[in-house]
Amino acid sequence: MPELRKDPIVGRWVVIANERAKRPGERKVDTSGRAGDELCPFCEGNEAHTPPEVAAFRPHGSHPNGPGWRVRVVPNRFPALRVEENLEKHGDGIYDGMAGVGAHEVIIETPEHHRTMASLRPESIREVLWIYRDRLLDLKNDRRFVHGMLFKNVGQAAGSTIAHTHSQLVVTPVVPPAVQEELNGGRAFFEYRGRCVYCDMIRQELADERRIVLDTSGFTAFCPYASRFPFEIWIVPKHHSSRFDHIAKAGVDDLGHVLHEVLSKLERGLDGPAYNYYVHTSPFDQHESPHYHWHLEVIPRLSAVGGFEWGSGLHINPVAPESAAAFLREVDVPPASAVATPAERTREPRRALVRV
Amino acid sequence: MPELRKDPIVGRWVVIANERAKRPGERKVDTSGRAGDELCPFCEGNEAHTPPEVAAFRPHGSHPNGPGWRVRVVPNRFPALRVEENLEKHGDGIYDGMAGVGAHEVIIETPEHHRTMASLRPESIREVLWIYRDRLLDLKNDRRFVHGMLFKNVGQAAGSTIAHTHSQLVVTPVVPPAVQEELNGGRAFFEYRGRCVYCDMIRQELADERRIVLDTSGFTAFCPYASRFPFEIWIVPKHHSSRFDHIAKAGVDDLGHVLHEVLSKLERGLDGPAYNYYVHTSPFDQHESPHYHWHLEVIPRLSAVGGFEWGSGLHINPVAPESAAAFLREVDVPPASAVATPAERTREPRRALVRV
Repeated sequence: MPELRKDPIVGRWVVIANERAKRPGERKVDTSGRAGDELCPFCEGNEAHTPPEVAAFRPHGSHPNGPGWRVRVVPNRFPALRVEENLEKHGDGIYDGMAGVGAHEVIIETPEHHRTMASLRPESIREVLWIYRDRLLDLKNDRRFVHGMLFKNVGQAAGSTIAHTHSQLVVTPVVPPAVQEELNGGRAFFEYRGRCVYCDMIRQELADERRIVLDTSGFTAFCPYASRFPFEIWIVPKHHSSRFDHIAKAGVDDLGHVLHEVLSKLERGLDGPAYNYYVHTSPFDQHESPHYHWHLEVIPRLSAVGGFEWGSGLHINPVAPESAAAFLREVDVPPASAVATPAERTREPRRALVRV
Repeated sequence: MPELRKDPIVGRWVVIANERAKRPGERKVDTSGRAGDELCPFCEGNEAHTPPEVAAFRPHGSHPNGPGWRVRVVPNRFPALRVEENLEKHGDGIYDGMAGVGAHEVIIETPEHHRTMASLRPESIREVLWIYRDRLLDLKNDRRFVHGMLFKNVGQAAGSTIAHTHSQLVVTPVVPPAVQEELNGGRAFFEYRGRCVYCDMIRQELADERRIVLDTSGFTAFCPYASRFPFEIWIVPKHHSSRFDHIAKAGVDDLGHVLHEVLSKLERGLDGPAYNYYVHTSPFDQHESPHYHWHLEVIPRLSAVGGFEWGSGLHINPVAPESAAAFLREVDVPPASAVATPAERTREPRRALVRV
């Protein structure tokens, strides 16, 4: 049974999930299915190989856990946290722990095995975003749950072990430290200046232009001033909102377009790099606030993170965000309507334009 | 010229070191030399291929930058931070930056190419630790410098690109966030309880025994209660001290023994895994304090860190520290005097006992 444990010095929570590595001597159990040549549990027709679906977009008349779906959400087979636990908290001398209650779901973004997210049709990306929102709205009704983290791992170096494109949602009984830091920072900035730090940042980035990758009526994509990783990109809504799950239909359409463009630029410009993205949004019990601003962060994983970064919390980034943004602005993306199907795409890998 | 930049939301500093990746289109410049088949700049006889040494242990009569040394310290050829900069600070709207002033040195731990740190003789490990201390004592005299981070990358997955065993020292003009969090946490615990949190932790770990890997008169090595990584090990001095550079000769002897045992257990038990270690010690301008306790953290890098960890700051660890410590206690290490030379060691890789 998974357990959350708190470091008594810095207060950092850790999930001890013994069941994810069945026992010493076995290889790590995949987060989301089996790697290698085996049957892909995420492909259409293999629905019986996942736990029963909790949500899906499928035509009227098609049956849950059968084929015909466009986007499908299932519980993770080897969850880091479990819905079935009680939120029992305990102490042990100077240590604090709690049962690993939460949820861990997999969003299967397409029935087709060989698509990448950037090669999905725009309407498919929009459905993925829409189901992100639906799952948050559903899970926040459980009062044991505090926060939902939507994220995506692409490529082995980014922690992915299954090729079929998917995202994940982990719902935790604590506010994740990275989100808490942003909440604290946003509040401190607001108390001092009376404005949202993210809104200020967007204004300055748009005026400066050097770090902008893409700008639409609803979203700005830019390489942040203090980028930790080469080609790091933040996608930030221009209209202030603290909660991703308050996004409207027009916002999803616009975000789907921006995400498609940004991921296509990364795929084409950096030759299909490993990357992660994740959505930072308010904890479930917090209403819209003037201090916090939801956003999506994309971090390409082009080089290994070493002892200096882990030991110091300081990152060394060998590519200035101004250079990264200039490079990405120049990468042409074919119009979404012209996106090739997997069969049409050439198999020959593109030569790397940049490798860091 | 490298630059430090601060994230305006969470206050996180980042080093933008453009010169470390010469330009887009080239592969990342190694932190410490050239990878691959090329001449190894860290081998005896190749001293002219590094910048001039800043320290070394070598017999009387041997010449700086010539052969004969046992441990050698040289500036990093592609430094993340530069000694030559002025500590100029600047603002740009909501952003804050400063020149990338600091130091970046490489500690070459042996003249022999095929040694690992665990296969060094105990007297060599002690000399490495002693030169760590010497470099901190020397660099803290520069008033522009705030903190020195000693660390080691072993294996590609841990950020290393050169095989010849070495450590690094990065001296920064800011307190690294990971150290600042520990300083804050240690102070808060002390204010509330009047004791050092690390001393309390050692007492509880020794009484509990389940997470202890090794215990000597001077040091305790244990898998921490809230381990972020499988087989994470902390080595903590039993006599309270805030500063690694206050270590005495007897402490170095004892730490050398513990480090040799711990790294040997990792190498043998986990089949030579990639790992990092780093030393957490007080900033240069802080005297001995009852709140803070220096220590060394070893983090094996057995699986990739994914989007959930980067997005949340929460780690998912599939191996409970109690299981990890029990496993490591059982790994036999031959007496240090019987350590084989590279020529004597069998070339056949040992079968993995545990792989996560």
